[in-house]
Amino acid sequence: MQRIGSALWPSLQCFQVYGANTNVGKTIVSTALCKAWRGKLDLSVHYLKPVSTGPLDDADVNHMAKFAPGVNTKTLFQFSKPLSPHIAAKDAGDIPPDLTVQQRTYHDLSEAVTKADVAIVETAGGVLSPAPSGSVQADVYRPLRLPVLLVGDYHLGGISSTIAAYESLRIRGYDVLAHFIFEDAEYQNSKYLTDFFLGNKVSTIELPKPPRQVEDAMKDLQNMQTYYSDVAASHAILEAVERLGHQHEARIKRLGEMSARAADTIWYPFTQHKGRRPEDIVVIDSAFGDNFDTLSNTMSPEASILTPAMDGSASWWTQGLGHGNPSLALSAASAAGRYGHVMFAGAIHEPALSLAEMLLQHHDNPRLAKVFYSDNGSTGMEVAVKMALRAARTRYGWDHAQEDIGILGLRGSYHGDTMGVMDCSEPSTYNDRIEWYNPKGYWLDYPTVIMRAGRWFVEPPHGQEAAFGNAQSFDSLNDIFDLRRREDAVYTRYIEKTLTELRDAGRKFGALILEPVILGAGGMNFIDPLFQHALIKAVRNRPDLIGTQKLRKPGSLDSWSGLPVVFDEVFTGLYRLGRFNCSSFLQAQPDIVVNAKLLTGGLIPLCTTTASQDIFDAFLSDEKADALLHGHSYTAHAVGCAVAVDSLDAMMQMEKTGKWDEFRRSWATDEVTGEGCWSMWSKEFVTKVTNKESIDGVFAIGSVLALTLKDAAGGGYNSLAAQGLHSRLLDIGDKGWRIHSRVLGNVLYLMTSQITTWETLKNVEQFILESVN
Amino acid sequence: MQRIGSALWPSLQCFQVYGANTNVGKTIVSTALCKAWRGKLDLSVHYLKPVSTGPLDDADVNHMAKFAPGVNTKTLFQFSKPLSPHIAAKDAGDIPPDLTVQQRTYHDLSEAVTKADVAIVETAGGVLSPAPSGSVQADVYRPLRLPVLLVGDYHLGGISSTIAAYESLRIRGYDVLAHFIFEDAEYQNSKYLTDFFLGNKVSTIELPKPPRQVEDAMKDLQNMQTYYSDVAASHAILEAVERLGHQHEARIKRLGEMSARAADTIWYPFTQHKGRRPEDIVVIDSAFGDNFDTLSNTMSPEASILTPAMDGSASWWTQGLGHGNPSLALSAASAAGRYGHVMFAGAIHEPALSLAEMLLQHHDNPRLAKVFYSDNGSTGMEVAVKMALRAARTRYGWDHAQEDIGILGLRGSYHGDTMGVMDCSEPSTYNDRIEWYNPKGYWLDYPTVIMRAGRWFVEPPHGQEAAFGNAQSFDSLNDIFDLRRREDAVYTRYIEKTLTELRDAGRKFGALILEPVILGAGGMNFIDPLFQHALIKAVRNRPDLIGTQKLRKPGSLDSWSGLPVVFDEVFTGLYRLGRFNCSSFLQAQPDIVVNAKLLTGGLIPLCTTTASQDIFDAFLSDEKADALLHGHSYTAHAVGCAVAVDSLDAMMQMEKTGKWDEFRRSWATDEVTGEGCWSMWSKEFVTKVTNKESIDGVFAIGSVLALTLKDAAGGGYNSLAAQGLHSRLLDIGDKGWRIHSRVLGNVLYLMTSQITTWETLKNVEQFILESVN
Repeated sequence: MQRIGSALWPSLQCFQVYGANTNVGKTIVSTALCKAWRGKLDLSVHYLKPVSTGPLDDADVNHMAKFAPGVNTKTLFQFSKPLSPHIAAKDAGDIPPDLTVQQRTYHDLSEAVTKADVAIVETAGGVLSPAPSGSVQADVYRPLRLPVLLVGDYHLGGISSTIAAYESLRIRGYDVLAHFIFEDAEYQNSKYLTDFFLGNKVSTIELPKPPRQVEDAMKDLQNMQTYYSDVAASHAILEAVERLGHQHEARIKRLGEMSARAADTIWYPFTQHKGRRPEDIVVIDSAFGDNFDTLSNTMSPEASILTPAMDGSASWWTQGLGHGNPSLALSAASAAGRYGHVMFAGAIHEPALSLAEMLLQHHDNPRLAKVFYSDNGSTGMEVAVKMALRAARTRYGWDHAQEDIGILGLRGSYHGDTMGVMDCSEPSTYNDRIEWYNPKGYWLDYPTVIMRAGRWFVEPPHGQEAAFGNAQSFDSLNDIFDLRRREDAVYTRYIEKTLTELRDAGRKFGALILEPVILGAGGMNFIDPLFQHALIKAVRNRPDLIGTQKLRKPGSLDSWSGLPVVFDEVFTGLYRLGRFNCSSFLQAQPDIVVNAKLLTGGLIPLCTTTASQDIFDAFLSDEKADALLHGHSYTAHAVGCAVAVDSLDAMMQMEKTGKWDEFRRSWATDEVTGEGCWSMWSKEFVTKVTNKESIDGVFAIGSVLALTLKDAAGGGYNSLAAQGLHSRLLDIGDKGWRIHSRVLGNVLYLMTSQITTWETLKNVEQFILESVN
Repeated sequence: MQRIGSALWPSLQCFQVYGANTNVGKTIVSTALCKAWRGKLDLSVHYLKPVSTGPLDDADVNHMAKFAPGVNTKTLFQFSKPLSPHIAAKDAGDIPPDLTVQQRTYHDLSEAVTKADVAIVETAGGVLSPAPSGSVQADVYRPLRLPVLLVGDYHLGGISSTIAAYESLRIRGYDVLAHFIFEDAEYQNSKYLTDFFLGNKVSTIELPKPPRQVEDAMKDLQNMQTYYSDVAASHAILEAVERLGHQHEARIKRLGEMSARAADTIWYPFTQHKGRRPEDIVVIDSAFGDNFDTLSNTMSPEASILTPAMDGSASWWTQGLGHGNPSLALSAASAAGRYGHVMFAGAIHEPALSLAEMLLQHHDNPRLAKVFYSDNGSTGMEVAVKMALRAARTRYGWDHAQEDIGILGLRGSYHGDTMGVMDCSEPSTYNDRIEWYNPKGYWLDYPTVIMRAGRWFVEPPHGQEAAFGNAQSFDSLNDIFDLRRREDAVYTRYIEKTLTELRDAGRKFGALILEPVILGAGGMNFIDPLFQHALIKAVRNRPDLIGTQKLRKPGSLDSWSGLPVVFDEVFTGLYRLGRFNCSSFLQAQPDIVVNAKLLTGGLIPLCTTTASQDIFDAFLSDEKADALLHGHSYTAHAVGCAVAVDSLDAMMQMEKTGKWDEFRRSWATDEVTGEGCWSMWSKEFVTKVTNKESIDGVFAIGSVLALTLKDAAGGGYNSLAAQGLHSRLLDIGDKGWRIHSRVLGNVLYLMTSQITTWETLKNVEQFILESVN
């Protein structure tokens, strides 16, 4: 199957003609341009009208053939009623789906490459007129992201419709290269719009109005022929076609230089730059839905130099609602237009309040009461640590000037790169060369979940069967999560023994910090949920092992006991694992939860740290100095909050309306239907891949898939075992697309967005099955 | 002068009727609505057509008077030519400025409050049709932000123009309450658009098409009368007017509840919540330009409950290009539509590359070579610290596991709230109750700049005349910045003595970190630039006082010497002080510079840490673990980078085209014209205010104004000396607006955006002069 992506062929200049309204002269502008290309520059020209309505005689292709002879013309879908395509197609009883329109348009252009120098794709009606399916036309063609020639509206009111059309194109990520408009002495729209577009760095080409239609058909024909001859030879048009050619070349040149320029100017995150070649930097021209459109290394002028590539890490775990989502773009723009950013000290605005109320409601956790905003997971975890330590210190009466207060966590945890939260992780490759790194805590071992050769297992950490018990096999993932039926005595014994030893050694802790279910950056470790459940229970039930023998409010759900329990759900929360949050997986609710990444559907940074009333109260005092003196300039920025409200709403609607039911069904077991855990990756696929020779084990939950590859050297961060598979997924071969995955040691993981479709997943799964040895 | 702001009177429902295009029936919809309000609900109705073109006989007010008798009608500006207002007004030789249109519209509505229950403001042409001035109409009325009734386009192509108009309204921050459209069996736009608007939570009201005009005028009149009688009594219209009433009430109710709800759900940054009353939380309904539109405490139904309030802290120092800037909103939307966010590990996209190239070019600092992206000033400073410490440790061969490496800084410095950079500041109210705070460095005292009673002074820190010399008086700020004419021997002696003592005590430092010119959060301290200059020089010239006697590349501009010098320009950079960066103020260039806040013009968080090649090279190694293993999920997010490119471009254009020349002139001295330092706050005003009884001293530079109030108790963070002035600026009195300022101890500061006008500043200055005792 030919993937649809951004279309850019060096040897074929392609432009899409959009009209600011219907009846503004799209076909006339197209014809004049084609005639100019044919005539003066002697180029081969291809004219495509993907969707046309009205009687065939009047069809735009015929007009083109008549007045710009020699231009190759084509219509893909012709509907006879002279109405909007969505009505005309319905009337004809033949409604091509958007994907078909996209594919056939792309295919037609790719066939034109060897035959033509320039191609024009003329749209129907206005910018946002419906396609046959009813989708807005500019959305349908967006995956191809052809450079746009906008034909302005010269009628009364046309200034408004032209600027509005331009804005709607920009919201959808189009580049508008030029604006064409007919001169009109009365309304003078062209004069106004020339200035407007100049301010937006878009040039305007004014064309004389075509002659009025006359009764005499022959005369009419002659008039039009004269018109076109004049216009096609006019300075304005010739300059325009020349400039368009330059713009086409300049775009390709810039794309070709970007890797080298980036290597010159950018200091990349998490990257050892020694030996990194500029050509290893992927140039992303744009992105849409699940895909990046990346510059290929192909340099044949007849091959498209842009290749769709699945964003297989969901852009570092951020993507929820897909790239280039016009609805989120409008949410962002709307908040920007209403507020910009407004200071959040002592103030409130609707998006921040709506989001806070939404989070408190949907976390559905009686412990949670207050939302604190920051900019990203790392800063939000810094806030969580400050909150928890203060609450614990205050309750237990510790003096932090005299005593070290650390955190309890799990080995391999990761909470971000600011130095405070680096100290929440035990020494590792990530942190131990950082000059100020100073680990503050204790990190427990834990049993993990994995599927091997079609069976699910819970396995103790290497060589620790004595403490954790032997590996156990399960029929399904749901059985592993059925905590009520499982026995946690062994885990509890191990945890309480550890806590006792720590207490006896004089260690003090101010928080239990967990990434629920999966440790992300630490290596995609799927922890036995029963262990995390037992750990939380032990900490809450045995405050005597922490700092005091007294429970302040025993049994109270809205007060913490033992230690404040912090869930770092930056990675795992907000539907990553198929649910709004992770509490139901662990049958335990946190006192503080941190959300980021998917919070904004994958658009811009924002983070919330949501805490209990009890923890909030620990900062109340007559002294300002006792307050949580933390804040960022863009705290609760309106744009982020508005996008988050709309993103969460969209994801909750998807859940409510059963958009993920097809995925769920694949994972349903007899006992657990509907409510069980599930993955976008099908059970059939996951099972199949575990039987591959090179695979040690696999897990999938929610949108996450992790493949552990066999490594004779034992795996770990520096393992190269997954490199081969990573490269094979990047190899475009004859598939027309590729997959960007990410590697952590000998684990290769893939992550979908929350809108990835069943069909796409089937293709990705097939690709993987073919690529794994 | 009546300030223009958002208009919301409890006793007057106001709506603005916009058309998706011209000739879509705005006046007919308005008339039908007015008739329904008059008739069925027996309400007093006011109809305002601010700008009308065409012959008076045909004017919309006459149509209204004819068919909805009893409605009070008014036109503010009538132009006889039936053309776009910008042409008709020009033709009439009478072009009312936008401010006049806004003021008269607001004034007319505020007069209607006592007389009417409902008011309709009908626009001219389409949403973005030009106003008389040529500005886009939806921009002109934006400050009032009246709820919108959008009349859709029922013609062929009208689906596109209606959705595009809707999107353009959203970009400008309008709330669209309802969509009205004529039924048309052929094109069926209303059917499509009803679904579209439903998806956007906007209800659609379909109206029958008005009868065709007939020859017989009397018959025509009767037809229209019948039409209006039917429509005004129709279920659809009656339901609509009822819903509009509910929406009006619901908006007011929600606004009234927001403070209390925020107090319930939000944990505020930098706030001691004990004793904080919900009513102290400012409800910001929207913001535009320099102003917030805030909920008043006024509860008289006839008073507007929204009050414009100058955002006098530039929203915590972020605002550059004003609130609700439609151009930045479109930049954001455009990047969102083209990319969303794309992962930045090993990838490049146009906005990130453009911004990096732009920064490197315009910092114009040969030391700088590489741009690292993060999310805010605090994280960007964490990155800077990691960079500098590694570079110093590597060069000097220190073992960070064995030796403490600190930073050199100035007392009162502040670099953000993440714990790593908290450790870069000496103990203070801000940090010393944070459990993990562990200061790592040494902080020098410094002389400060202030104007007292009309004279500029450089003053030594309290009681330290012996080390820093006596206070010196200067004729102008330019004289203080004329470093070449000043003598720094005293400072150098003090600095070298301090560094020698530190070295001899075995202290090790990895960076010199400075906020150039002004320490912001530390209390708005204006440091003598000569002192910072001398400090940088001493550190660079005397590496023997740091860690080694050898200069690696003596004299080389692109290599650091002594210590990497970090400029934290998060607050002071990017035109805050009137210049792109602070290097020219100090006659010294940093090895690392951090930019945030104004970087995005005040819209969303983004930060860059820009460093020298030499510092970058310190991380090159065969081991990945030696790399700068720092990164955020939204690193170099496309939306932020695109907004930053457009913001910086806009500010650079303002500089280039002399937009600040009027401000500059006020500060020019004979010797220094054009290039001298200057402030948006006029020299005349600043001089005047220093002569006020309660004022200890004042400074102004760039957009910053700081007033130090006399405090018998000595000032400091807990001083209450500035509270009275702060309250007086908030008092709306009879001014129609108020000023939100910020207080740091006994310092009250005000900050403009970069687009604040000379006229606005004159009003603000007057307000301050009247408020200071």
